[in-house]
Amino acid sequence: MTVATAAVSNSSEGSGASDSLAVRARRTRTAARSLAIQPIEMRNGALEAIAEALAAQKDSILEANAEDCRVAQEDGISSALYGRLKLTDSKYDGVIAGVRDLATLADPLGAMQIHRELDDGLVLKRLTCPLGVLGVIFEARPDAVVQIATLAIKSGNGVILKGGREAVRSCTALVAAIHQGLEAVGIDANAVQLLTTRQETLELLHLDQDVDLIIPRGSNAFVRYVQDNTRIPVLGHADGICHIYVDESADIAKTVTLAVDAKTQYPSACNAVETVLVHRGIASGVLPAVGKALTEKGVEVRGDETALKILQEAEVKVIAATDEDWSTEYSDLVVSIAVVDHLDQALAHIAEYGSGHTEAIATENQTTADRFLSEVDAAGVFHNCSTRFSDGFRYGFGAEVGISTSRLAPRGPVGLEGLVTYKYQLVGNGHIAATYSGADAKAFTHRDRPLA
Amino acid sequence: MTVATAAVSNSSEGSGASDSLAVRARRTRTAARSLAIQPIEMRNGALEAIAEALAAQKDSILEANAEDCRVAQEDGISSALYGRLKLTDSKYDGVIAGVRDLATLADPLGAMQIHRELDDGLVLKRLTCPLGVLGVIFEARPDAVVQIATLAIKSGNGVILKGGREAVRSCTALVAAIHQGLEAVGIDANAVQLLTTRQETLELLHLDQDVDLIIPRGSNAFVRYVQDNTRIPVLGHADGICHIYVDESADIAKTVTLAVDAKTQYPSACNAVETVLVHRGIASGVLPAVGKALTEKGVEVRGDETALKILQEAEVKVIAATDEDWSTEYSDLVVSIAVVDHLDQALAHIAEYGSGHTEAIATENQTTADRFLSEVDAAGVFHNCSTRFSDGFRYGFGAEVGISTSRLAPRGPVGLEGLVTYKYQLVGNGHIAATYSGADAKAFTHRDRPLA
Repeated sequence: MTVATAAVSNSSEGSGASDSLAVRARRTRTAARSLAIQPIEMRNGALEAIAEALAAQKDSILEANAEDCRVAQEDGISSALYGRLKLTDSKYDGVIAGVRDLATLADPLGAMQIHRELDDGLVLKRLTCPLGVLGVIFEARPDAVVQIATLAIKSGNGVILKGGREAVRSCTALVAAIHQGLEAVGIDANAVQLLTTRQETLELLHLDQDVDLIIPRGSNAFVRYVQDNTRIPVLGHADGICHIYVDESADIAKTVTLAVDAKTQYPSACNAVETVLVHRGIASGVLPAVGKALTEKGVEVRGDETALKILQEAEVKVIAATDEDWSTEYSDLVVSIAVVDHLDQALAHIAEYGSGHTEAIATENQTTADRFLSEVDAAGVFHNCSTRFSDGFRYGFGAEVGISTSRLAPRGPVGLEGLVTYKYQLVGNGHIAATYSGADAKAFTHRDRPLA
Repeated sequence: MTVATAAVSNSSEGSGASDSLAVRARRTRTAARSLAIQPIEMRNGALEAIAEALAAQKDSILEANAEDCRVAQEDGISSALYGRLKLTDSKYDGVIAGVRDLATLADPLGAMQIHRELDDGLVLKRLTCPLGVLGVIFEARPDAVVQIATLAIKSGNGVILKGGREAVRSCTALVAAIHQGLEAVGIDANAVQLLTTRQETLELLHLDQDVDLIIPRGSNAFVRYVQDNTRIPVLGHADGICHIYVDESADIAKTVTLAVDAKTQYPSACNAVETVLVHRGIASGVLPAVGKALTEKGVEVRGDETALKILQEAEVKVIAATDEDWSTEYSDLVVSIAVVDHLDQALAHIAEYGSGHTEAIATENQTTADRFLSEVDAAGVFHNCSTRFSDGFRYGFGAEVGISTSRLAPRGPVGLEGLVTYKYQLVGNGHIAATYSGADAKAFTHRDRPLA
């Protein structure tokens, strides 16, 4: 990275916005190295100081947000986006409460995962440690600034934040409060940086040297754009195409409840269901009830040929599904329904169209359930419960960084553990590899010790 | 992936080499899905059957290898590459023994990492499962074919192998034996595929849909090429620039032993030391001894200005280091030495030039050691032991997939765990998310249960 090196060698101690992003990112790297070795009391103390600063500056921050909202409305922002941009009084108080809750969670750093004697006096430990510097890019939500910045601080990471253009005044005011909190406990405020221009987003995606993980928060198209434009690992997911397979042995009442919850409890969530696959043997028994319950909740139902016929006969409002339906994440009150001949056909459909997010089966047959749970390749495989449970808070992770549909870990809902990595510490007393190789090689003992 | 879809719909059951790579990769994906759910007895049985097939076909495989070696020599292959290509009798027997050893290792699949009651009758489990399909690209070594294919089988993964052009006859013969072993126990042989042309390597790197992890085995330049040309996650490392920092409080005799082992025990290994950083306060005390010991082992010593002066005064053969030395992985009997003023300068040097592989400190001062272990950001941080211990076998992992210098896990030496991921299984009895939200929200219990 010639550019970065050249830039760094010209850097001063200041943090003027006129410095190149590479210079500022290097400054975050340096601050992160220092944050990484702060004890948990210090990191939690920073969270408390940030909560206090946010409380003290509530009026001015809400004023900045009101101005963002005013300008956004003039620009004809959508009501959905406006809802995310707007910091209500209760949302703001929730943000502060969230920071204080985070302080109560266990320290994600220094956890021992391996403790092994390799030989007398030669001891290996694997310990969790921070990743380094996170790059977080999100759309309108200013509350995400606080959530992500405090998750980063708790886990000893630096963070470079890029919020949406619409939220620039809110984000700037929030980051000022965060900086004040960090400085109050003596932590280098460069650990948290805010970018404000779109050009910087692109630059951020190319900072392989000083950014270790990109976390995009926004629409599917936005996440895919980020994934396509960076070599830095990306934590997140583009599509969330989730299925419920209603087996021949499903309980009909249970299935209706699950389908309604999975589709309507929060239809724009990534873990909402898109497609219900129904075993042919139960289709005429279950589809009318499922179809009626969904349409009563305002859901548009789209059926394949068989489902269409059954639903029309039951006088449920339904339209014909097209091939495109099977690969569409609706994020809305729309569901597609297909009838399959057997479990294998359902598994094949899910393997082809599922996005590896969350897949559920409704059945009272344990053998079928076991096959489904074992054979479906997704972050979440569920039996007789709603796909909507696929969520860090519901899993008990306390704080959620995002949901990953990558096959590599971290996969599924990711808590603080997604922001840490580990390193191996090996301590000896002059031990050398030659002792353990060749004709007279000494054997390793490889004796595991307690982790605590 | 229009190409893949179109191709797949035209695919037949055969596995002719004339099929497109996308078609063959999809076939490996299908075989891998089936392998993924085989019980451990079946996967270990396949390893035994492969060991038997390799033993039975030893003569013909060694003949194929002899022909590869003959042609390679005609083409003027380097002696180092020839050494890797040549399957000696003992190397071949070692390969078979390795397959049988692998069968004795614990099953990496189905391990429970989280077991938590979310509420009455709603139970979450996190279980390890295979990644899916691995793409492995390696240079000359034909024994790597067997090692990697059997690691993949043990961990329930499909694998697409691309060996070096030089080893094509050997690899083809070895894969035939592997296929025979798989078929003997009724596992779809498409789970292991061999590519033989360079063009296919490039194609493989673009098969995002059907390859989940790329493992490159070869030179630094080769690994970097792979990293630069794929969006699929890459497990491995390009550079291995390792340091030993000799603190003011180092034991001189111990330091000499460590430096000699770290540099000369196997100089072409990635965990061999490149640069020795020496505290100014001990430089004139330790450098002559270290320099003499290294030069006696045939090591070329390159010193910064201060080290040069001290070594020359001690009549140790030394040349001046250039700036390039600090960022060069020698993979040879060459070492660079720099004198630093204090620990912080050593840490800064390592942060700038280290590749995050393995970094060691020699000191009798516990406080200094603790700072080094805590502050250095590398997969391995060592105290008073040789950098050469950074290795999966030495760590007790039994089988090594590779060593990763990425910050994200898996990091450092990676055993079978690098070939598995996990999924969340949630089992309820009609549980829906609506129960746990809104005004009358029921609280989750989030009670952890035993993992066994």
